[in-house]
Amino acid sequence: MPDRIPDDLIALIDRFARIGATPGGGVRRLTGSAEDGAARALFADLAQARGARVAVDPVGNMFATFLTAPDATTTVLCGSHLDSQPTGGRFDGALGVLAALDGAAALFAQGIDAEHNLTVVNWTNEEGARFQPSLTGSSVFCGKYSADFALGLTDRAGVTMGDALGQIGWLGTGTPGLTPVHHLELHVEQGSVLEDSGVQIGAVTASWGVRKLTLAFTGAPSHTGPTAMHKRRDALRAAALAITRFHDRMQGETAQLHWSAARIVAEPDSPNVVAARVTVWFEIRNPDQQICTEVGDRFLRAIAADIDALGCGIEVVTDEARPGTALDPAGVRLTLEVCETLGLRATEMRTITGHDALALAAVMPSTLVFVPSVGGLSHCEDELTLPDDLRNGGAVIRETLRRLACPAEDAARARTDSG
Amino acid sequence: MPDRIPDDLIALIDRFARIGATPGGGVRRLTGSAEDGAARALFADLAQARGARVAVDPVGNMFATFLTAPDATTTVLCGSHLDSQPTGGRFDGALGVLAALDGAAALFAQGIDAEHNLTVVNWTNEEGARFQPSLTGSSVFCGKYSADFALGLTDRAGVTMGDALGQIGWLGTGTPGLTPVHHLELHVEQGSVLEDSGVQIGAVTASWGVRKLTLAFTGAPSHTGPTAMHKRRDALRAAALAITRFHDRMQGETAQLHWSAARIVAEPDSPNVVAARVTVWFEIRNPDQQICTEVGDRFLRAIAADIDALGCGIEVVTDEARPGTALDPAGVRLTLEVCETLGLRATEMRTITGHDALALAAVMPSTLVFVPSVGGLSHCEDELTLPDDLRNGGAVIRETLRRLACPAEDAARARTDSG
Repeated sequence: MPDRIPDDLIALIDRFARIGATPGGGVRRLTGSAEDGAARALFADLAQARGARVAVDPVGNMFATFLTAPDATTTVLCGSHLDSQPTGGRFDGALGVLAALDGAAALFAQGIDAEHNLTVVNWTNEEGARFQPSLTGSSVFCGKYSADFALGLTDRAGVTMGDALGQIGWLGTGTPGLTPVHHLELHVEQGSVLEDSGVQIGAVTASWGVRKLTLAFTGAPSHTGPTAMHKRRDALRAAALAITRFHDRMQGETAQLHWSAARIVAEPDSPNVVAARVTVWFEIRNPDQQICTEVGDRFLRAIAADIDALGCGIEVVTDEARPGTALDPAGVRLTLEVCETLGLRATEMRTITGHDALALAAVMPSTLVFVPSVGGLSHCEDELTLPDDLRNGGAVIRETLRRLACPAEDAARARTDSG
Repeated sequence: MPDRIPDDLIALIDRFARIGATPGGGVRRLTGSAEDGAARALFADLAQARGARVAVDPVGNMFATFLTAPDATTTVLCGSHLDSQPTGGRFDGALGVLAALDGAAALFAQGIDAEHNLTVVNWTNEEGARFQPSLTGSSVFCGKYSADFALGLTDRAGVTMGDALGQIGWLGTGTPGLTPVHHLELHVEQGSVLEDSGVQIGAVTASWGVRKLTLAFTGAPSHTGPTAMHKRRDALRAAALAITRFHDRMQGETAQLHWSAARIVAEPDSPNVVAARVTVWFEIRNPDQQICTEVGDRFLRAIAADIDALGCGIEVVTDEARPGTALDPAGVRLTLEVCETLGLRATEMRTITGHDALALAAVMPSTLVFVPSVGGLSHCEDELTLPDDLRNGGAVIRETLRRLACPAEDAARARTDSG
């Protein structure tokens, strides 16, 4: 029978929630900030104190390895991210890193006889809040982006991610030093599926697709006062019309569509100058990437004439397709089996948003486990996962890590169970 | 017969246009920036080299006084501003300061026998680009704002105007030290009235009114991906709808209406977080302030239900009425008389936008003179006033300054002319 999860995980989460704490109970830990540095330092200290060796790679990904199989050259990766949105919740990301640390350290302390080692990971800049694109560290690890590309990403003030991470002292030259055989991640759902259905654990089978479309609306600067109205080419007027049309259209498209226009930057950003260039970040999500593509194309066609009639233009700044990614089916089965052992209600489900586990799925078997989010809220201070759900998630991670690290034992148990 | 204006004014304008020059031929000289400091230093050097004594007041207003009447305790103020929009034109503001410097220095060098001294002024933060509200220095001089209020204004990075001016060394304790009897300002029109009618000089009688309405649209932050669509309270969606409605409504309101929504700030400014608060700077301009008020009220009433239906709210952050200001009628007549003497085509007209001369009009006779803007463009790199128009403006300022400084001589000439 697996151990009941102690309250150490809750205490760990509370401890990290104090780093970059916001007045409303959330956290602000932007990549490369002092708060990010403090969270990284605490993670490294706690992992080392529990017997792990810590390596940092060239984009700041942190690998804390517990040698549960000192003679093996293989390891099971388990983690998530410690960075947050500008006013983010305390569980998004941190839960995954801390449940991994808690579980791996406990198994190491027990002296389990494993076939693989256990490496707890903190992936750099998962959120993409300060530096875009998101999932940066895990995507570099998988070879999707080069380290140079990631280090050269700039924030709004023109600071590169490389400079920001260098300044807080978290650029390294290390690697896990072992061959990863699996990636496991626990995360809060951030939606309402588990809560609405009264299920405790989600075994994620795949992700929705998403089209991330960043458009710049171009006009011409002029004085907001004396310039004749018919001579104005107002990029903010164009952008506002496009956002309004975007929401109106999407509401009439297919079911299972999620969409957003969340970020806007107007230049030259003076109340007395007609905006010359306004950039807007649009996102369209559906289980089927083809639908994201078609819906986005229809939107672009629908607004073209109206933007032109305002004397403005549209530039496609970025147009990124992130098709739905399937996670390892064996990992989904393992999650469901572990939940059955632990007496937890579990369901297969899809994730609507991106996670490091999806990036990792391109290069190794990858498993993503969800616990419920109260009200389906996240990326805000009101984000909440109840203590029992945190403990359930921690227990699932610890037991899944045990089975992934000791596959022969797991297979033997499976034979016994069915015998 | 007044002197023909030399090309010194053109050379002066070119010299200042190199300070903060932008690639497209404009300038970027935000208040309290290094470029602002450089322009201030050059202005002080040139004025002192021509015989002026320079004083700086507690909000950075600069007064360069030529003692054309050493025994008098009075002075004629003449100037404008050296700050610019983020990507502004080279003439907006600088022309007024440099024409004043050129004219006052020439009269001083001639040793005119004047009743009043001449003080060339550089007013701080006329543009209101980095720090709002605009017309800051002249409004403090007139007692509309306190110096503490002005020094405490903050830019987007949280830097106060006091700290910014202190850092470049342009906070003082001085005053003009003399009683001002008149304020004179030359400015580019920034509209198309003069160009369209083929007139060389505008004698400004009054300003349009303006309602400056800054609204914050309030929603709630949440994840742009998994959050159920019906649970979102999207402040950017609300702001975009309001901007779109604003333009649609204003087009159907009365003639002689100018309007804008030029600045927008979304928080928390992440592509993956539904915007929680979006602030938009609206402006409504008309010769009649009452119309600005009514049109703005109708707009607010028209959008209330729609914003509420999106689950969002509206906060009025600021709601500033700047009623049309009348300029000194005697100054308008003087401008027209000077133009007749110089053989220049002139017309009475109103200004649509604010100028330091309007702030000054609250406390002393104030005169504002316009020269044409090519295409009516300003607040952009394409802003252009042709050399002949610059020379005309310089000649009008020099001759008007002479007559303001020597009113008895002017009266005698008037008697001769009519005799």
